[in-house]
Amino acid sequence: MSDGFVLRGDICFSVSKDEVKTIEDGYLVCEDGVCRGAYRDLPGAYSRLPLEDHRGAMILPGLVDMHVHAPQYAYWGLGMDRELIDWLSHHAFPEEEKYRDTAYAEKAYRAFTEDVRRGPNTRALVYATCHVPATLLLMDMLEGSGLATCVGKVNMDRHSPPGLQEEGAEASLRDTEEWLRVIREEKSYTNTAPILTPRFIPSCSDSLMRGLGEIRRKYGLPIQSHMSENQDEVAWVKELCPGTASYAEAYQTLGTFDGEKPAVMAHCIWVDAQEISRMKEQGVSVAHCPQSNMNLSSGLAPIRRFLDEGVAVGLGSDVAGGSQTSIFRAMSDAIQASKMYWRLADPSCAPLSLEEAFYLGTLGGGAFWGKAGSFLEGYEFDALVIDDSQNWEANPLDIASRLARIVYRPDRCKILKKYVRGKSII
Amino acid sequence: MSDGFVLRGDICFSVSKDEVKTIEDGYLVCEDGVCRGAYRDLPGAYSRLPLEDHRGAMILPGLVDMHVHAPQYAYWGLGMDRELIDWLSHHAFPEEEKYRDTAYAEKAYRAFTEDVRRGPNTRALVYATCHVPATLLLMDMLEGSGLATCVGKVNMDRHSPPGLQEEGAEASLRDTEEWLRVIREEKSYTNTAPILTPRFIPSCSDSLMRGLGEIRRKYGLPIQSHMSENQDEVAWVKELCPGTASYAEAYQTLGTFDGEKPAVMAHCIWVDAQEISRMKEQGVSVAHCPQSNMNLSSGLAPIRRFLDEGVAVGLGSDVAGGSQTSIFRAMSDAIQASKMYWRLADPSCAPLSLEEAFYLGTLGGGAFWGKAGSFLEGYEFDALVIDDSQNWEANPLDIASRLARIVYRPDRCKILKKYVRGKSII
Repeated sequence: MSDGFVLRGDICFSVSKDEVKTIEDGYLVCEDGVCRGAYRDLPGAYSRLPLEDHRGAMILPGLVDMHVHAPQYAYWGLGMDRELIDWLSHHAFPEEEKYRDTAYAEKAYRAFTEDVRRGPNTRALVYATCHVPATLLLMDMLEGSGLATCVGKVNMDRHSPPGLQEEGAEASLRDTEEWLRVIREEKSYTNTAPILTPRFIPSCSDSLMRGLGEIRRKYGLPIQSHMSENQDEVAWVKELCPGTASYAEAYQTLGTFDGEKPAVMAHCIWVDAQEISRMKEQGVSVAHCPQSNMNLSSGLAPIRRFLDEGVAVGLGSDVAGGSQTSIFRAMSDAIQASKMYWRLADPSCAPLSLEEAFYLGTLGGGAFWGKAGSFLEGYEFDALVIDDSQNWEANPLDIASRLARIVYRPDRCKILKKYVRGKSII
Repeated sequence: MSDGFVLRGDICFSVSKDEVKTIEDGYLVCEDGVCRGAYRDLPGAYSRLPLEDHRGAMILPGLVDMHVHAPQYAYWGLGMDRELIDWLSHHAFPEEEKYRDTAYAEKAYRAFTEDVRRGPNTRALVYATCHVPATLLLMDMLEGSGLATCVGKVNMDRHSPPGLQEEGAEASLRDTEEWLRVIREEKSYTNTAPILTPRFIPSCSDSLMRGLGEIRRKYGLPIQSHMSENQDEVAWVKELCPGTASYAEAYQTLGTFDGEKPAVMAHCIWVDAQEISRMKEQGVSVAHCPQSNMNLSSGLAPIRRFLDEGVAVGLGSDVAGGSQTSIFRAMSDAIQASKMYWRLADPSCAPLSLEEAFYLGTLGGGAFWGKAGSFLEGYEFDALVIDDSQNWEANPLDIASRLARIVYRPDRCKILKKYVRGKSII
């Protein structure tokens, strides 16, 4: 007999960028970690499955964090008075150096993992540091938590502090190969996978980038990095890559975009129309991190433009540029950021709706894993059961309104249950 | 013997716009509802007072909400896809009509009052509706909560829906006089006071505005209203007040600014240099509501400019334009909004620091009451005792860093005690 169950409650999920489906007092079926559909009336074929009755609670897909730095969690909320390059030197790099010490990494990564496990995210693309032992430790912890993640050992062989910079492209690539070997040969992760993670062009020599491109092709791995977050950074990349017309072209020239395996670029604020076309053509996804972009005074990304052009977009917390891991907060921030972009930068970019932001934080980001982030049939079963009863104080609310309140005030709600690939982790 | 006590804990408060004072394991003295100072060592003169030991907890001044609509609390988080005028017609006005029914008002105002009482704000300037019985009911409830508030019966005699619009200037003024008479003769509020509240120029005829100016002079009352929130609103006011060069000039011409009793204008986004000078000269304060300004796509206010020119500024939640009453959220939003203003609108307006945002939400707004919002000697004693121990996960933190984390993530903290004018209300 298959491993299955049914959840009963008020169900809400994206079926596309523009459509949220809601079922009041409905049934959600899971078999073997896969969603078998959401129903107003439970089909007879599933009546034999055990039923968890959450009537009155909201049932949403798990949220997807497309960009988070695990080692930066230790200083969330601090140092928000600097811009990117300055912030990296004063906060990110000194903290990341500490992860050479696995005892420190153990303590700090435990706090990060617990925060994400208890929160609403079920999936994440995670940056570790350049240290292989600490990165493997983080992967062990995330695997233990039940979350579904891709984790990257960071590569950085230039323009970094001595205590953090790797000793040349060759050493960085060798460590990366060793990290991948350990995962392949000594681990048996089911929910945790490696993702190549060159920090960004300023931190990575051309030969390191090209070497990572080869490793990528050899093992068929996804890749993640940062692109066009800050205007000074963009100017610096122009200097570092004199032969290329744009940041996106530089990544493509260096083999980071290969049009095949997934590539996720965080931020993508200062991009032009040609870069957007190139990203579309190369199948590059955007990890939009609105809170971080505001905190570090980076600017606001033209998300409407990406959506109109058919570029895949998900949301990222970008802790510690963002001060919290919850993608609910990223949803409301994405809406507010899009309104300010429309008002102050480009009146042709209409603001994001609540439905679109919910899509970005679930199905939009979930696309990285294929079928994740929705309760459509055949999707991996990530679900949140949420008690939002504190929000019905004065007037009764329909499910769409309840969703809006959960997005704007997740702190008033309690996660009763959380499933990843059909397994309960809360 | 006087009514006094001492709090022991980690103390943090603004002494000016640019300076936050911190005392690790210090003593805060209250006598007769007034602060007698914050000390590293308790002066002998106060050793006879009862001591509340909150070692390890943070002690901050109570927060001040300079702009909140109590009747809009019932639909917080909803309808964020509209701009101001449209949002008023579709959401604010239909909801406010319900407050004709005091049974509804009782239920909805109870939820609002409880939310504020349990949260970090100790003072607020509150809009009710135009209904006198419901406004008095709200004032009774707020008085019962122990919060320190000024509450306004709203005036609106034009361009409003029939169910809400008052029957001409005379009726509106008569109701206002009656409301004030009841407060004077039948109530004995200690923490609750009236504030005149013409909604804004589009909702108030010239004769209503002038009549309110007379009532203001007669009783020496403060006044609050909205100014320059939305570009369409500003254009409308230009049409409605053909003889005046600006929104601020219109308010002054109509007698709303009189250079004597306090006037608080919410928003003040689309203002020019002359309006800022006029506000300074007339002693008009700004209630800056960054979350609402983003949610309703209104724009971003030039707060740095107001501060540089010496205009008084405080923060407002503007529920339900803002989705929560907590002024901690308004602090982090104010910082983010100022960063976006600097980046996208005016590079000569430097972003607000955390210290400045904390000042705005405490001492800045507190200035409306004279001496409130700080632990300087002689200030009214509003205090929060906050358990923020969940925030020290990985590394030890100094008090300034703990303050930053409380501001960015108040949802991770617990308010252990809350004092207003020396009385505990949590």
